[in-house]
Amino acid sequence: MDQPSPTPLFDQVDNPEDLKRLPREQLAPLCAELRQVILDTVSVTGGHLGSGMGVVELTVALHYLYDFKVDRLVWDVGHQCYPHKLLTERKARFHTLRQKDGLSGFSNKWESEYDAYLMGHAGTAASAALGIAMGDRMQHKDRSSVAVVGDASLGCGVAFEALNHAGSLEDTKLLVILNDNRWSIAKTVGALSRHLNKLRSGSLYNRAKETVHNLIQSIPLVGKDLDRGLGDALDIVKNMVVPGHLFEELGFRYFGPVDGHNMTEMLEALEAVKKLDGVTLLHVLTEKGKGVPGSEDRYDRAHAAKPTKKPTKKEPEKVPVEPAVLQPIAPVAKSDGKPWTTWFGDSIEALAAADDRVIAITAAMPDGTGLMKFRDMFPDRFIDAGIAEQHAVAMASGLATSGMRPVCAIYSTFLQRGYDQVFQEVILQRLPVVFAMDRGGLVGEDGATHNGLYDLSFLRCLPGIVLMAPKDGPELREMLQLSLSLECPSGIRYARGNAPELHELVGWHGRRRPVELGKAEVLREGQDGAIFAYGHMVQTALEAAQLLAQRGVSIEVVNARFCKPLDEQFLLGLSARHDKIVTLEDHTVRGGFGSAVLECLAQHGPQRAQVQVMGVPDDILPHMSRDQIVQHCGLTARHVADRFLVDRPAVAGAPAGR
Amino acid sequence: MDQPSPTPLFDQVDNPEDLKRLPREQLAPLCAELRQVILDTVSVTGGHLGSGMGVVELTVALHYLYDFKVDRLVWDVGHQCYPHKLLTERKARFHTLRQKDGLSGFSNKWESEYDAYLMGHAGTAASAALGIAMGDRMQHKDRSSVAVVGDASLGCGVAFEALNHAGSLEDTKLLVILNDNRWSIAKTVGALSRHLNKLRSGSLYNRAKETVHNLIQSIPLVGKDLDRGLGDALDIVKNMVVPGHLFEELGFRYFGPVDGHNMTEMLEALEAVKKLDGVTLLHVLTEKGKGVPGSEDRYDRAHAAKPTKKPTKKEPEKVPVEPAVLQPIAPVAKSDGKPWTTWFGDSIEALAAADDRVIAITAAMPDGTGLMKFRDMFPDRFIDAGIAEQHAVAMASGLATSGMRPVCAIYSTFLQRGYDQVFQEVILQRLPVVFAMDRGGLVGEDGATHNGLYDLSFLRCLPGIVLMAPKDGPELREMLQLSLSLECPSGIRYARGNAPELHELVGWHGRRRPVELGKAEVLREGQDGAIFAYGHMVQTALEAAQLLAQRGVSIEVVNARFCKPLDEQFLLGLSARHDKIVTLEDHTVRGGFGSAVLECLAQHGPQRAQVQVMGVPDDILPHMSRDQIVQHCGLTARHVADRFLVDRPAVAGAPAGR
Repeated sequence: MDQPSPTPLFDQVDNPEDLKRLPREQLAPLCAELRQVILDTVSVTGGHLGSGMGVVELTVALHYLYDFKVDRLVWDVGHQCYPHKLLTERKARFHTLRQKDGLSGFSNKWESEYDAYLMGHAGTAASAALGIAMGDRMQHKDRSSVAVVGDASLGCGVAFEALNHAGSLEDTKLLVILNDNRWSIAKTVGALSRHLNKLRSGSLYNRAKETVHNLIQSIPLVGKDLDRGLGDALDIVKNMVVPGHLFEELGFRYFGPVDGHNMTEMLEALEAVKKLDGVTLLHVLTEKGKGVPGSEDRYDRAHAAKPTKKPTKKEPEKVPVEPAVLQPIAPVAKSDGKPWTTWFGDSIEALAAADDRVIAITAAMPDGTGLMKFRDMFPDRFIDAGIAEQHAVAMASGLATSGMRPVCAIYSTFLQRGYDQVFQEVILQRLPVVFAMDRGGLVGEDGATHNGLYDLSFLRCLPGIVLMAPKDGPELREMLQLSLSLECPSGIRYARGNAPELHELVGWHGRRRPVELGKAEVLREGQDGAIFAYGHMVQTALEAAQLLAQRGVSIEVVNARFCKPLDEQFLLGLSARHDKIVTLEDHTVRGGFGSAVLECLAQHGPQRAQVQVMGVPDDILPHMSRDQIVQHCGLTARHVADRFLVDRPAVAGAPAGR
Repeated sequence: MDQPSPTPLFDQVDNPEDLKRLPREQLAPLCAELRQVILDTVSVTGGHLGSGMGVVELTVALHYLYDFKVDRLVWDVGHQCYPHKLLTERKARFHTLRQKDGLSGFSNKWESEYDAYLMGHAGTAASAALGIAMGDRMQHKDRSSVAVVGDASLGCGVAFEALNHAGSLEDTKLLVILNDNRWSIAKTVGALSRHLNKLRSGSLYNRAKETVHNLIQSIPLVGKDLDRGLGDALDIVKNMVVPGHLFEELGFRYFGPVDGHNMTEMLEALEAVKKLDGVTLLHVLTEKGKGVPGSEDRYDRAHAAKPTKKPTKKEPEKVPVEPAVLQPIAPVAKSDGKPWTTWFGDSIEALAAADDRVIAITAAMPDGTGLMKFRDMFPDRFIDAGIAEQHAVAMASGLATSGMRPVCAIYSTFLQRGYDQVFQEVILQRLPVVFAMDRGGLVGEDGATHNGLYDLSFLRCLPGIVLMAPKDGPELREMLQLSLSLECPSGIRYARGNAPELHELVGWHGRRRPVELGKAEVLREGQDGAIFAYGHMVQTALEAAQLLAQRGVSIEVVNARFCKPLDEQFLLGLSARHDKIVTLEDHTVRGGFGSAVLECLAQHGPQRAQVQVMGVPDDILPHMSRDQIVQHCGLTARHVADRFLVDRPAVAGAPAGR
């Protein structure tokens, strides 16, 4: 006889229609099953765990009462949507989460008709849902628009802009659900979180109550006698004096707080607000990581998880398609050094110990950017600005104005949020702010929203910034030191994952040359062409040169080190020495490092060398592992080597058109 | 005998030290004199008028009580600092405002030690002042940090981020002065402005008072009797129940509102808050355009003024230095058609009349972007998002998701503020949002903060966007029509000032070819080289070709129309036909249109043509008139023509290095 299913209720639910058929009392047990499925799956796939586990009841309640084939649901950040995926016709594919050709780790409008919107950066859900609601009103579409926003996302400027706008409208219906778990990835910071604490604990009400007590007592003659009998009568004032304060002042009708893990409360609250016109905020209290064993003690409340189990049923693995020209040869030693992020953290700790002007700034990512130890070592020189890159950058400019040396440790993709502040506050004032851009390049499973593929293009156009990228960990440290000595803005770009341990590579002569502003470094001599590589792609360049050496082709490998200022004199010499230069970067081919090389050479008239730009294709990339996406983009050592073996190869890294 | 000076008090004041010597009762008359000086000067120079006129008393009070050689003062936006400039050793140069080599129209740290900070975009003053305050604390510098922020700037997300952060700090001293004039350039929008209205009028207090009345009356037995005697006793609750609401909830101590034109009140309030530790917000009520005749009736409260008088004393004009090769020849007909902005406004009105999905979105610039008439014609399809570009773009993505066709009319430079939303909300979802980028290129007197020199670089790197620029007004209309028919994001770039009237130019054959996606257009045939020009620089290209024709040099002139997708087939043909192609754009040479051309040609292997990129040099540009800055950048028709007359010219548009 078959064993009974561990998930008898979930087995009956493929989509929200199935869900709606369950009686209400079965919804809480269903939530327990959903949590178990998520736990089991993420232990194999890895992924964002804590957020989704916190919103299981909320998700079930939403799908129970709304119809999100018609109504529109926007998940802020999007990584809290795992339970949503499980309930919307994707359970059979849930084990493919974040894998090549599998489900995305975020909400994704191409994946399901239930996903109204794609989302990976925080804070924009209210704007998007408001836009949808306004468009629907204009087109007389009768449906609801709902945004689920975390308490930390609410500290994003754009979320405030959206609330400020929505609250001023008379004729638009919008529900914003505030998923208040008191955590971003780290603990939510900022005055707003204190305000939410007050709403949560009722202390706002208590303060008002006390005020009225004082008032009554101060009334001449009868005050004292009266106060004794005041009792419960004061409660009637509760919703009048302290309804939602900040949100009410912004024009929202405020409901809550509601226990987000109490299904009955959730359903009642949602049913009440669903009927309302106008803009409404429902304040739901949840526990991030609810149901994850041990999450209470974890710094990040189980924000993300790496795979801990191996998959039981394996999909047949595809053999990666390699370019035909080169056959496998002696394997190149693979790096497994320490993470770039750790190199950064260690370096800034050392540099801050030596210079008390050094400040580290993060936008809600102390762990992801490697600053946890720094925070403990230098609490007075560590600033978590919250999910507020705009403010983080502008504040850094103020710190620099005051004479400090701020280092903004912000992922490449998130620096986009502070772009205008980089321009106006930092560039135009030529202030010595250092941007430590982690996750520059392809990041893998998180996919398109998190790849850092544009920083060279959007920063290189700005005057007077120094842009550099290290080939390995020790060079990162040197570059950070150099940055802190400059009297101008600078940016250091490094990748996700481990830094290469280049001394392991036979191809490199192993000598270290000190980093010098605007100077490139030759790592390997060669006569048959050159690879001019940027940042961690230097490793790939060395590997390619090794492959080619085994075929009797001798290639010069240059570590560019600087994208701005480019080592123009060196480059002109290189171009005079070779017929072919391949530029190599982990960045889009539109306007990046290769374009800087082309600009320089064009500026100096006819050149001997023909330049081929290798980089990330100009397209929206699917999610898959980092190795897979590097292969997908044609950026392996073999792809690079191929460029020197074929006369006119198809341009893998830069497809025609856009 | 000499006439008595019309400004006897101002004549005594060169700097804040002089100001401090005046008795308090002379400060109000001094303000009247300052207003007259500003009015007289701006009537000659042009410039931002309304904001500065509103803060005369505030400025005088600040300098009377603080010492901003030591203390730090950050003016949000910066164009409200004219009175500040007059009081800080710049009165003798005040008539050079916004002119070449003259005073900047904004606060500028290189101009004066009294200017702590450079500022042109709104909303970042609180962040900057907070950064300065934190840095000062860390370095034990004993000085005050003050930000003056407009009520409209407070709706910027970054301002909210800063308040949210500052309000959570225990040990930092910061004064934020809310200069509440109820106007951005247009009327301030958003729920926050309603909140400020309440604070202004005291209605918050009145509501609380009523609530307490109701409470008292509801108390059994004695309530009614008690209420009669309540009287003034209720006032004691005022500052406890409704001190500043939103600001107090964000952790600020709130003071105000204060009449910003009553010098006694201003001084008293500033003296009180100056002593306080912690973060304080002083709410000052001012009238934008105070003292400008007729400003009350003006839509924009005299926000900016064009020169109305001629200067009485003329500086000796420098003869512009022209490149030596070409001598002046027959003058080319100069365009004086209608403004690009008007072409845009007219076009979107016509297109919206034909398609009710078309929506126009502005970020607080209905007039500047040419949408005033649209607003009246289609009030339901016009959205002013406030100074909130992030939200404007994200909301547009929601509108597009809902099936509408939003057009975001945002100046090139301000679109930087919404960059991450362009990326995530629009690009990654391939949503049909149109970005109408006014003020693309060099803007002239407003200078570096307002030039739109980076949009091609920061947008071209994003996958799947269509980028185009019209050569003239009718083409702008066609491009807008094309944009609205595309199922993907698109951007149209056009310049400040008047669109060229190209039919006036002899050089153009005058035939109109319909705009076709990704196709360039040949405007003039030629055998001795080609100019591949983008947007309104096509006019310059035609003028250059005419100059060259008079010297017997025959140049092909191509209107590129599209930067992305580039017309690759055409370009390859062009490169096969000519030895030299000059690309021409009103954009930085780092990563712009010229780089797109270089990338395309490099990708297709060796080419006959040598490409020279002409564009704006990679540097922070000084402010001067648009004609002067075009000359300064080496982008006149003569500069272009020179490229075909000299074998290897010095590269005027693209200096070496960074």
